[in-house]
Amino acid sequence: MKYHTRKWIKPEDLNPNGTLFGGRLLEWIDEEAALYAIIQLENQKTVTKFISEIDFQSSAKQGDIIEIGMEVTKFGTASLTLKCEVRNKMTRKTIITVDKIIMVSLDENGNAKPHGKTEVEYVKDRLKS
Amino acid sequence: MKYHTRKWIKPEDLNPNGTLFGGRLLEWIDEEAALYAIIQLENQKTVTKFISEIDFQSSAKQGDIIEIGMEVTKFGTASLTLKCEVRNKMTRKTIITVDKIIMVSLDENGNAKPHGKTEVEYVKDRLKS
Amino acid sequence: MKYHTRKWIKPEDLNPNGTLFGGRLLEWIDEEAALYAIIQLENQKTVTKFISEIDFQSSAKQGDIIEIGMEVTKFGTASLTLKCEVRNKMTRKTIITVDKIIMVSLDENGNAKPHGKTEVEYVKDRLKS
Amino acid sequence: MKYHTRKWIKPEDLNPNGTLFGGRLLEWIDEEAALYAIIQLENQKTVTKFISEIDFQSSAKQGDIIEIGMEVTKFGTASLTLKCEVRNKMTRKTIITVDKIIMVSLDENGNAKPHGKTEVEYVKDRLKS
Amino acid sequence: MKYHTRKWIKPEDLNPNGTLFGGRLLEWIDEEAALYAIIQLENQKTVTKFISEIDFQSSAKQGDIIEIGMEVTKFGTASLTLKCEVRNKMTRKTIITVDKIIMVSLDENGNAKPHGKTEVEYVKDRLKS
Amino acid sequence: MKYHTRKWIKPEDLNPNGTLFGGRLLEWIDEEAALYAIIQLENQKTVTKFISEIDFQSSAKQGDIIEIGMEVTKFGTASLTLKCEVRNKMTRKTIITVDKIIMVSLDENGNAKPHGKTEVEYVKDRLKS
Repeated sequence: MKYHTRKWIKPEDLNPNGTLFGGRLLEWIDEEAALYAIIQLENQKTVTKFISEIDFQSSAKQGDIIEIGMEVTKFGTASLTLKCEVRNKMTRKTIITVDKIIMVSLDENGNAKPHGKTEVEYVKDRLKS
Repeated sequence: MKYHTRKWIKPEDLNPNGTLFGGRLLEWIDEEAALYAIIQLENQKTVTKFISEIDFQSSAKQGDIIEIGMEVTKFGTASLTLKCEVRNKMTRKTIITVDKIIMVSLDENGNAKPHGKTEVEYVKDRLKS
Repeated sequence: MKYHTRKWIKPEDLNPNGTLFGGRLLEWIDEEAALYAIIQLENQKTVTKFISEIDFQSSAKQGDIIEIGMEVTKFGTASLTLKCEVRNKMTRKTIITVDKIIMVSLDENGNAKPHGKTEVEYVKDRLKS
Repeated sequence: MKYHTRKWIKPEDLNPNGTLFGGRLLEWIDEEAALYAIIQLENQKTVTKFISEIDFQSSAKQGDIIEIGMEVTKFGTASLTLKCEVRNKMTRKTIITVDKIIMVSLDENGNAKPHGKTEVEYVKDRLKS
Repeated sequence: MKYHTRKWIKPEDLNPNGTLFGGRLLEWIDEEAALYAIIQLENQKTVTKFISEIDFQSSAKQGDIIEIGMEVTKFGTASLTLKCEVRNKMTRKTIITVDKIIMVSLDENGNAKPHGKTEVEYVKDRLKS
Repeated sequence: MKYHTRKWIKPEDLNPNGTLFGGRLLEWIDEEAALYAIIQLENQKTVTKFISEIDFQSSAKQGDIIEIGMEVTKFGTASLTLKCEVRNKMTRKTIITVDKIIMVSLDENGNAKPHGKTEVEYVKDRLKS
């Protein structure tokens, strides 16, 4: 799993109990899944279709740094399935795991659109050719 | 199911494709579940522990009004299980459904704390007595 | 008066004194009035024209849950007059009251547009017919 | 009337109709009144107690620059009464006027606290002495 | 130097150490530079091209009021160079200084566009003529 | 240079001209510098002290994905100097470069505190030992 985006927990990210607001974390995961899928599928019109069970294993507090990991588990015809883990950057303790986030590539009319991809690609390789 | 909180989709809630950003919707659902559980369990220290599969059935666009519905499906010893549906207020078309959101009541040290509740209560009845 | 939308007071909603920032509360009221009027008048192009005196009777603190109530007091030709009360959900103590919020229905050119409504309607009844 | 704070209308400030969201404007006015009163009364614990009728005379659109004006109309024992006007910076067209915003100075326990001020002061004069 | 816009440091503006988040301050400065330049150049399509060294001389804490000052140091053909200082409103202590912020006036296609201005103008004088 | 955090340009990140708001970009850079320095120096009380010239080489538009790169250029006694580049993820075109961002490690009283670090460390190596 590749960990890219990092977040620094600020007062604006807390729930009234003073720990990381779960809704904020879900927002960050959805954004990371979207941009990861857009990069892989090379289609900006890629949307979240399904998220499997979310287990909140531990929390985070103000000042913590977390990192969001994504991994492709399946290429469908018009979809991409991701696995996600969020962990504390300094201790590597898991905060949340999501087994399946299914992203779907759409055409201009909002219908599923085959993306023709079958494996993870790196932008640097695309730019070389 | 009771529908309380309503949201008006503004430009700040959109993804780059111009439809409701999924992450924002998840943030709203988590907040609604939290406050619904706090009201029922009468404990401000109530946190999200688990969210079951989320199916994005339709989207919403700028200017739409959505409403978020919650329903208790189970009272555990220290937990409360909710079912959630978000729908378009004007057409009643379903946007998202979540079968199980498990909220847990905590004590001062962050350990599960029995809440002693077994059925849905209304604030007006509590205040009468 | 019907109370629908609820808010959970988070750190991002506080003023520097640690109580609910008044400006945030006004923002929430204006949004609730707008969406209430849009639902009633069935016209998305409905804007706030006038707000009568606002009396801040009590405040709210981090972790409190508040609910926003709206009631129609008058149907004008192109306008709708609302009365608003915001109260603490758990104690029912009043936080703010506003006697008159006048919302106006506009046409495509931004001119007042008669809405033809004379009484409160429920979406479920509209959908039945 | 002195016009200090200016705002640049960005997409995040718009309502779904594409004009300045009234709730955002009210938030800005409340913040400006608060900081104006804090500067005059030299007490950070100054809160909004009352806002008189608000008349939305014109709107603003994306890219417009607005400026917020404040003027003291009365020094009470523990209060300060302000008059507010918001106008378009480039055309000077009035957007909103509020005749009375009453701010109250509080002590540590949240009770009204006499401020001893009777006229507008400038920080540069305070610092000279 | 003219000081216009003022900000009240709220919890949402803090970094996890409880002082003003530097990124938020940079955001405020960039907005102030943009609107100052738009007013002078009378062209809404004015963008930030260059910012010189930024020295964080002191910080600010929750409840502080800061003011942002701008001064024109040079009119180029299509550009405007500003000098900026942010200071604490109550103590006048400097928080940050930036010697050069270069704003550029663009035409519809995003190319530099001569603005024909050579000195600071006041809106009230423009409206008189 | 390592590129970690990625951002998806949403409507809330745009200036009124419809391109990425420069102030938002500066906010993201400052957060990334702070968390990068905190990870390296293992001290949460690390603040931005100085940012060298910022050259806005190109812009980004709604839907673009950008990535923020950081590289250590110098370990001082209590400071860490970083170099930063932000680029478009899909095209690798540079958006902004900053040669020097100086972060300083502080003790409890806000004074510079030697950090004892002389080279880049990886969290995985720290956790192994």
